Amino acid sequence: MTELTPVFQNDTPLYDQLYRYIIAQIRSGALPAGEKLPSKRALAEHLGLSLTTVERAYGLLTAEGYLEPRPRSGYRVTPALTLLPTEPPPPAPPPRREEPRLDQRFSTSAVDTSVFPYATWARLTKEAVYENPDLLQRGESQGDWQLRGALAGFLHQYRGVNCTPEQVVIGAGLEALMWVLLQLFPREVFALEDPGHTALRRLLDNLGRSYVPVEMDAQGMRVEALEASGAKLAYVTPSHQFPTGVTTPAARRGELLRWAYARPGRYLIEDDYDVEFRYTSRPIPAMQGQDGGERVIYAGTFSRTLAPSIRVAYLILPPTLAERYQTKFGHASSTVSRFEQETLRRFLASGAYSRHLRRVGGLYRSRRDALVHELESWGEVRGADAGLHLLFTLPGREETDLTARARRAGFQLRGMSEYCMGSVPRPGTLVLGFAALPAREAPQAVGSLRQAFAAP
Amino acid sequence: MTELTPVFQNDTPLYDQLYRYIIAQIRSGALPAGEKLPSKRALAEHLGLSLTTVERAYGLLTAEGYLEPRPRSGYRVTPALTLLPTEPPPPAPPPRREEPRLDQRFSTSAVDTSVFPYATWARLTKEAVYENPDLLQRGESQGDWQLRGALAGFLHQYRGVNCTPEQVVIGAGLEALMWVLLQLFPREVFALEDPGHTALRRLLDNLGRSYVPVEMDAQGMRVEALEASGAKLAYVTPSHQFPTGVTTPAARRGELLRWAYARPGRYLIEDDYDVEFRYTSRPIPAMQGQDGGERVIYAGTFSRTLAPSIRVAYLILPPTLAERYQTKFGHASSTVSRFEQETLRRFLASGAYSRHLRRVGGLYRSRRDALVHELESWGEVRGADAGLHLLFTLPGREETDLTARARRAGFQLRGMSEYCMGSVPRPGTLVLGFAALPAREAPQAVGSLRQAFAAP
Repeated sequence: MTELTPVFQNDTPLYDQLYRYIIAQIRSGALPAGEKLPSKRALAEHLGLSLTTVERAYGLLTAEGYLEPRPRSGYRVTPALTLLPTEPPPPAPPPRREEPRLDQRFSTSAVDTSVFPYATWARLTKEAVYENPDLLQRGESQGDWQLRGALAGFLHQYRGVNCTPEQVVIGAGLEALMWVLLQLFPREVFALEDPGHTALRRLLDNLGRSYVPVEMDAQGMRVEALEASGAKLAYVTPSHQFPTGVTTPAARRGELLRWAYARPGRYLIEDDYDVEFRYTSRPIPAMQGQDGGERVIYAGTFSRTLAPSIRVAYLILPPTLAERYQTKFGHASSTVSRFEQETLRRFLASGAYSRHLRRVGGLYRSRRDALVHELESWGEVRGADAGLHLLFTLPGREETDLTARARRAGFQLRGMSEYCMGSVPRPGTLVLGFAALPAREAPQAVGSLRQAFAAP
Repeated sequence: MTELTPVFQNDTPLYDQLYRYIIAQIRSGALPAGEKLPSKRALAEHLGLSLTTVERAYGLLTAEGYLEPRPRSGYRVTPALTLLPTEPPPPAPPPRREEPRLDQRFSTSAVDTSVFPYATWARLTKEAVYENPDLLQRGESQGDWQLRGALAGFLHQYRGVNCTPEQVVIGAGLEALMWVLLQLFPREVFALEDPGHTALRRLLDNLGRSYVPVEMDAQGMRVEALEASGAKLAYVTPSHQFPTGVTTPAARRGELLRWAYARPGRYLIEDDYDVEFRYTSRPIPAMQGQDGGERVIYAGTFSRTLAPSIRVAYLILPPTLAERYQTKFGHASSTVSRFEQETLRRFLASGAYSRHLRRVGGLYRSRRDALVHELESWGEVRGADAGLHLLFTLPGREETDLTARARRAGFQLRGMSEYCMGSVPRPGTLVLGFAALPAREAPQAVGSLRQAFAAP
């Protein structure tokens, strides 16, 4: 048996010093795997320590896998030791040097998080994690029942969505839920709005999946073009289309539903993008609630109404698709941590989400008003009756020239053509967000753009 | 102008009663959209209230979007009101009646969360959310730099993985990261271990993607069969294969690497499944660290070592693939909430994760020992030198008969054939987990199985 000869200092507990000494002997190989250690009593006597001290040290070493007690045979160094560091991992490398970033105040994806109910969210997060140890186990792949129920209730009151919790699927962002759709429909062709948001298009491109761009008109996706496309799945954003800003009126919605009903296997994916922010008229209830044919898949996200770093989105599937989901995905785990689901559930159930929506609605309204005021005397403003972006056209100007000039002046601006798969409906058109542009800064920011655009 | 005639009680603040009264009038339509309200002073006088009371009420109503102040024109009811409920959403429906569940103590996916360092995790969660309001903004699609750095450091010390933070991709579970791989490799054919875990196979099936099952032998995936398969991407679990329990030795790992180097565009996906739990020998360092040809993609998850409801996993991409990732996905958001990333970073950096691994390692070792002890006198036990499951064979018995008998006795058991795409290598073989089977319960649980299997 190897002799143990620790040297003790005065500064830290003796059991801790003995514990670290024995670990060091094991790691250096001085105490090899399988080696027998002295009994606790013998070691205590040998080192002039109390039995309690040695019991504590051996107890820790056993709990942590360095020693194993053998009945009537004392303690041995465990044969198998993973190379676990006793020290914390090395510190992370320093942050990389950040490139100077362009001014993002006109960003269309920005969200003002300064009005986020941070204290409430933090408190609910703390409550969720401290009060629910049962949430450590695997939850349902669709998400936790209670959250799905709370969401179904909220969407019913708010958007006229009709569903049971069985139809709700929670996921870590809309893109994660697009993966669900891509597996529910592995071969079907998508119809995408053109112009339209690029995220789904990029995903389909990355996977080599087929899709057809279908042009928009002043009322939304053109239904004759959709019919002609031969697509089975039409992805629409009828509340406030991105980027055109069109709100699809009731009549066109009815035509879209009739398109879906006309053939088996057709579905509308209703992404209720930006429904929360309206400035001139009431929102139209969701198509899902008017869908008697079970052909509408409803999608939404909390990333724009809460914060971009909170990754929770949802699908409401028609009942037959919900069953198909259960069959295909019942085994999987949700992509959203159950603690986060519970935090969100509390946030919804307490009414805090409704209050937050009202508050940010007021803030964004004032920003939209300020920007529209600066722009309407300069060029054509469209699509500003809802949402967090608008279209601004300077007739006769080239979009690429405008965005380049803006860039040289330090601003990140998006032109309409970025979102067009076909021809650009209106040249010289910029897509400007205002969620990140405080109202009092609008005059100066727009003034900078005027200068940049006017310069020779 | 509509007359306002609230009736005040004594029990709640007057400004709050006035606020609620005005909302009720708006919602009932008694105060229609666009209607002008009395000036604050006039209303205060009319109702016998202090100006402060009316100012507070009007202030709240303005902030929440019910009223809008027009310069020199007083307050008007806003024209656009989303149908936001003032009450919290209806309570969730009652939980469904749960079907009686089978005994899951032999489950291969179970994790014992009773030893989860809950208090530490809760405290770190609280600190992460209270101390980091900057985390509300969108983070990098790969995950936050600091966490990636901490993970790179940990994996280097622990598994000999060599990478910079740029090569790390964080995602909400391994399946979310598989979507990344499927987009990086939209057409390539996968080689999957046969027998093997079903999750990736199901995903590929759901998407109609091609894959080839490649059989295992006593040392891991058979390399001649892999070569013959024509696949470009080989998904392997060399630390403790599921379900065979094989640990791929150094020589076979070298052959797998040579397979990858033999042709351009070939990659190994090294899923380091269950490396954390070893009982008889030290783990072999990761192939990734020995990969001089940049052909190993390393994958791991925290779901088995922390808790199933915590959805964080990672890929370590070779540098060229990391660049391709940035190009294809730089725009997207991470699927993991930044608060959760920060909690995990603190958990790693503080050494708490290492301590936790040692502690659960000791617990799982005792459970493994107890189960092996009960089984080895009854049948053949294999694959028990690592991981959280083992293979148990009763020669001459039919696997389907055994699992059916177990089910009738109330136990959920898995047979080897569930994981086989080709022929079953060893009939009468069950795959038994022990993570969820406390050591003292092993004799009784195994005794129940013996009874169930022995009955006529």
